[in-house]
Amino acid sequence: MSDRKEFRDLATPERAHEVADGLDIDPGAETVPLDGARGRVLDERIDATLDVPGFDRASMDGYALRAEDTFDADEASPVTLSLAGAVHAGERPAVSVDPGTAVEVSTGAVMPDGADAVVIVERTTATDDGVEIRTAVTPGQNVMLSGADIAAGTRALGPGTRLTPSEIGLLSALGVDEVPVRAKPTVGILSTGDELVRPGEPLQSQAGEIYDVNSYTIATAVAEAGGAPELYPHVGDDYEAMERLLRRAATECDLVLSSGSTSASAVDVIYSVVESQGTLLLHGTAIKPGKPMLIGELGDAAYVGLPGYPVSALTIFRTFVAPQIRDAAGLPEPATATVTGEMAVRERCEEGRRRLLAAGLVENGDGDLLVYPVDKGSGATTSLVDADGTVTVPADTAFLDAGESVTVELFSPDVRPPSVLCAGDSDPVASQLLDGLDEPRFLPVGTREALRRLRDGIPDVVVAAGPTGASSDAVELGGWTREWGLVVPAGNPDGIEGVPSLVDDDGSMVNLATGFGLRTSFDAHLDALADERDIARSELTDDISGYDLTTTGGESPARAVSDGDADAGLGLRATATALGLGFVSLGRQRVRVLTTADRRDKPAVERLAGAIDEVDLSEFPGFD
Amino acid sequence: MSDRKEFRDLATPERAHEVADGLDIDPGAETVPLDGARGRVLDERIDATLDVPGFDRASMDGYALRAEDTFDADEASPVTLSLAGAVHAGERPAVSVDPGTAVEVSTGAVMPDGADAVVIVERTTATDDGVEIRTAVTPGQNVMLSGADIAAGTRALGPGTRLTPSEIGLLSALGVDEVPVRAKPTVGILSTGDELVRPGEPLQSQAGEIYDVNSYTIATAVAEAGGAPELYPHVGDDYEAMERLLRRAATECDLVLSSGSTSASAVDVIYSVVESQGTLLLHGTAIKPGKPMLIGELGDAAYVGLPGYPVSALTIFRTFVAPQIRDAAGLPEPATATVTGEMAVRERCEEGRRRLLAAGLVENGDGDLLVYPVDKGSGATTSLVDADGTVTVPADTAFLDAGESVTVELFSPDVRPPSVLCAGDSDPVASQLLDGLDEPRFLPVGTREALRRLRDGIPDVVVAAGPTGASSDAVELGGWTREWGLVVPAGNPDGIEGVPSLVDDDGSMVNLATGFGLRTSFDAHLDALADERDIARSELTDDISGYDLTTTGGESPARAVSDGDADAGLGLRATATALGLGFVSLGRQRVRVLTTADRRDKPAVERLAGAIDEVDLSEFPGFD
Repeated sequence: MSDRKEFRDLATPERAHEVADGLDIDPGAETVPLDGARGRVLDERIDATLDVPGFDRASMDGYALRAEDTFDADEASPVTLSLAGAVHAGERPAVSVDPGTAVEVSTGAVMPDGADAVVIVERTTATDDGVEIRTAVTPGQNVMLSGADIAAGTRALGPGTRLTPSEIGLLSALGVDEVPVRAKPTVGILSTGDELVRPGEPLQSQAGEIYDVNSYTIATAVAEAGGAPELYPHVGDDYEAMERLLRRAATECDLVLSSGSTSASAVDVIYSVVESQGTLLLHGTAIKPGKPMLIGELGDAAYVGLPGYPVSALTIFRTFVAPQIRDAAGLPEPATATVTGEMAVRERCEEGRRRLLAAGLVENGDGDLLVYPVDKGSGATTSLVDADGTVTVPADTAFLDAGESVTVELFSPDVRPPSVLCAGDSDPVASQLLDGLDEPRFLPVGTREALRRLRDGIPDVVVAAGPTGASSDAVELGGWTREWGLVVPAGNPDGIEGVPSLVDDDGSMVNLATGFGLRTSFDAHLDALADERDIARSELTDDISGYDLTTTGGESPARAVSDGDADAGLGLRATATALGLGFVSLGRQRVRVLTTADRRDKPAVERLAGAIDEVDLSEFPGFD
Repeated sequence: MSDRKEFRDLATPERAHEVADGLDIDPGAETVPLDGARGRVLDERIDATLDVPGFDRASMDGYALRAEDTFDADEASPVTLSLAGAVHAGERPAVSVDPGTAVEVSTGAVMPDGADAVVIVERTTATDDGVEIRTAVTPGQNVMLSGADIAAGTRALGPGTRLTPSEIGLLSALGVDEVPVRAKPTVGILSTGDELVRPGEPLQSQAGEIYDVNSYTIATAVAEAGGAPELYPHVGDDYEAMERLLRRAATECDLVLSSGSTSASAVDVIYSVVESQGTLLLHGTAIKPGKPMLIGELGDAAYVGLPGYPVSALTIFRTFVAPQIRDAAGLPEPATATVTGEMAVRERCEEGRRRLLAAGLVENGDGDLLVYPVDKGSGATTSLVDADGTVTVPADTAFLDAGESVTVELFSPDVRPPSVLCAGDSDPVASQLLDGLDEPRFLPVGTREALRRLRDGIPDVVVAAGPTGASSDAVELGGWTREWGLVVPAGNPDGIEGVPSLVDDDGSMVNLATGFGLRTSFDAHLDALADERDIARSELTDDISGYDLTTTGGESPARAVSDGDADAGLGLRATATALGLGFVSLGRQRVRVLTTADRRDKPAVERLAGAIDEVDLSEFPGFD
């Protein structure tokens, strides 16, 4: 048993790759039926055991005959042969061809004995005496000889061949109905941590429960890499239960992954089990994210412990685990799994650790690929869908410069850059417009931050709500106005009549963060009221309970009211109507959909502009 | 009902696309469990129905406290707070934070009431009095507020989103365990023709039976395009049975394909059923292959009749049917489904019909992609695996010139150019060497034809057997010699002692075609015997029964002997040994593995050269 201290120093990324590459997760071979073999990889060579076709086969509709009987025939002087009978596809010939005779054959028919060629029907005429042949043919013409397609004994497909429809077709021709293929490595996924709950089960948020993100994410990534994921029942941080489950998974799987918890105690439990009952090969790497990665062996199974944060777990899985699964399944590295683009902005990096930078993609107006960092803290699950892949930054790199060319390893070969990258304020009309586009991406960062990013050249489109500073670069695609105010409980039981009620009465509110359109309009409204009362705005806001309780979700204040957590919340009439709540109007604000000159001609921006012109605002209460 | 005559004129390809695009095979939506949703496409928008996280969450291990209590703290003058308790991930806090106190928290823990920030454990020291804080934090630091990742009411994923591991992760975070996705269109596949037998069932070749290639090929292609294939039991050409099956399939499927038979009678039956009971929309197109394509409607299902030859069927499926299935399933056109290369040789085309030319791919020494036509007659199933895709040639194009840039539509996104393209004679050592390479391709065309293609710049490697003309361009990678002669029944019952027995006795033989190495050596042997007897070679060969009965499969003559169809066959000692037959040696011949200077450095050619040096010839009887 290795001494635990040995692992105190973080392993280099190269060493981590070496250890991961050395894991044995070979699942061996299995036999699968041909109709379930798509995408699988042959484990051994398949030789033809029969001739295809298995008989000399007429390859056209016409007449089977002896070629030498036609040598003098042409259009001007046809030769007449007597008709000896007919053979159709799928029939055993009951006739043979003697000199001076012919037999009618259909495509695919067995050539009758004595015949060595076929004259196509178009060059013949049936007569009372038999059949008139108007062309000469050579021996073998319009006949596919037995074995001419594939001869018995021929090497048909080699080991390692991936089975696409074409190979399935060849195997069908050989009569093969089951094939020896590389088995899929069985990958057990253990979810640990007292706080995790499987999706679909009830969640007690106030007890700190959260849904288990990593189990299904990693299971899906395992399947994508060609493995067979096996989800084990959730256990908490209990040592005995975890030990039993790990041992069971190690006997049932080629590879065991643990993933899910960020809690130190769960990690400690797994660490102890692997260290005491198996072999710990690596503990920690100088990679961000991924520092806590564990690699070991437990019984006959390999073991990898993934970091807890979803983007980190998926990144480490892709980098260290997916290649092993693909290799064990016999699959090649996907050809489309990397793309090259240029950094949209400068990004600083922490020196000393290799960084796998989560990155999003966007095409600029010229169709060039721009790469921008996605960093909300690795704990954010939205980073999963806002990032398209990762950029590997060497440990000695202090920054990636704007315009620098970088390679992005995509999270999946299915990843495409979004048709349009939008950022800004949440708005129900904007959401509906996005629904009409193919694979758009929307970053709900609020108006101010979105406009900043637009100036950096990242998003294609910004949904800007409320009064915004003039931006000379922006091109307006269109817009609408929306009624905003205070969302209150149904029936407005506290009789809130506007901002004075909030200032002068006891009620509490929930606000939105600065930079969001409703907040900007709200603050402007407060400024006007302060002017009216000839006081500073802070004198008003100090008296509004919850003014500093800010959220970034457009509906969050209204939902706090709905949940009984506040007496009022900043929001839209449309939101109040949708949630069945009361509403006190404070005004109307403009929502503008902005782009830049160079992105204006992107097809999805063009479609968005068209959709804005046609949207039916009457569906949205308070919009016009 | 349309008059059948209307369809006598072939429809233009544009019209055929228009009719195919107009088919309705929309399968609607279905709900699938999250763990079965990989690769599926959302049918509707998913909004978040809960906040993620659902509580203010510590995002680091450390101490939850009031930020204002730390404002004066730094390394030089730490602040000591009393310890009020601890909260771990997955626990409901039992304590709260009053001024001057702190609570130990682990990552993921619920923030206790009263706390607004976390100081990370590394900047603290536990003391007897509580905890020493050595840094100042701001409110909100190291805390993820409720809803900060995803706020309830936010648009999370739009309709049309393809579900990769990342989206599965986001849905998990929202607690979603089943998702509304586009259903897979159900595609019924009918196999017709009296001659077809399902793979795995016994085959009666002499009754003209062949294995059904198209059913599994098309079923696999349907699955690849995102459809759910449904194979119907095979029926022959009986009108009543076909009518019942077509009607049943039309009620059970969104789309019905018939495919499999080349027999005119089966096509006629289907034509009649669709014409009399449904609507025939198109019959025949000016496309090669694909002239016999049928498109129609039968009940609520769409119907497409594919050509019978396998490459033709797959080509027409890809061109006209797969896009409809992908569209119905909500899937995008695969991004990697086309590649651009240059024609390796000139190819003549028949004017007047658009041609979908089956093409193979090979990389030259510079990594450029060369495209060569694969044309063995569409009936050959080996063309399925020898071709990588199709080149669309307009109807008014007379030829594609060598060096001309063309676009190849790949048969499947999984298609890759072979690592090495080989051609030549079949040889058991060569087969084993190929088994050691990743995805090689071998064309068993014989030595002479392979050397011709090498001069045209197509294959990377030629397996040349027997005496061959000198080729100044060729570079030899290595070789071996093999013993050849006459394969005879076990125990050599006819006492065949060599060629004189064949000439002078009654026995029959099976020969190989000219251009194959064994044939070249055999003819040289005959020349020597003729010289010895001072006669013309033809005087010998006229007396050898079966000398003109030639095959192209290296083992075919030996297998004819094994099957009792001949008394002797040209072949290798190794083949005789493998099949348990007798052998009369006629000599030894050299097998040389050749490449060209510009392909010598391709990685797979390099590996092949290394493998030749290391091959153990003692495994192969008669080889050294």
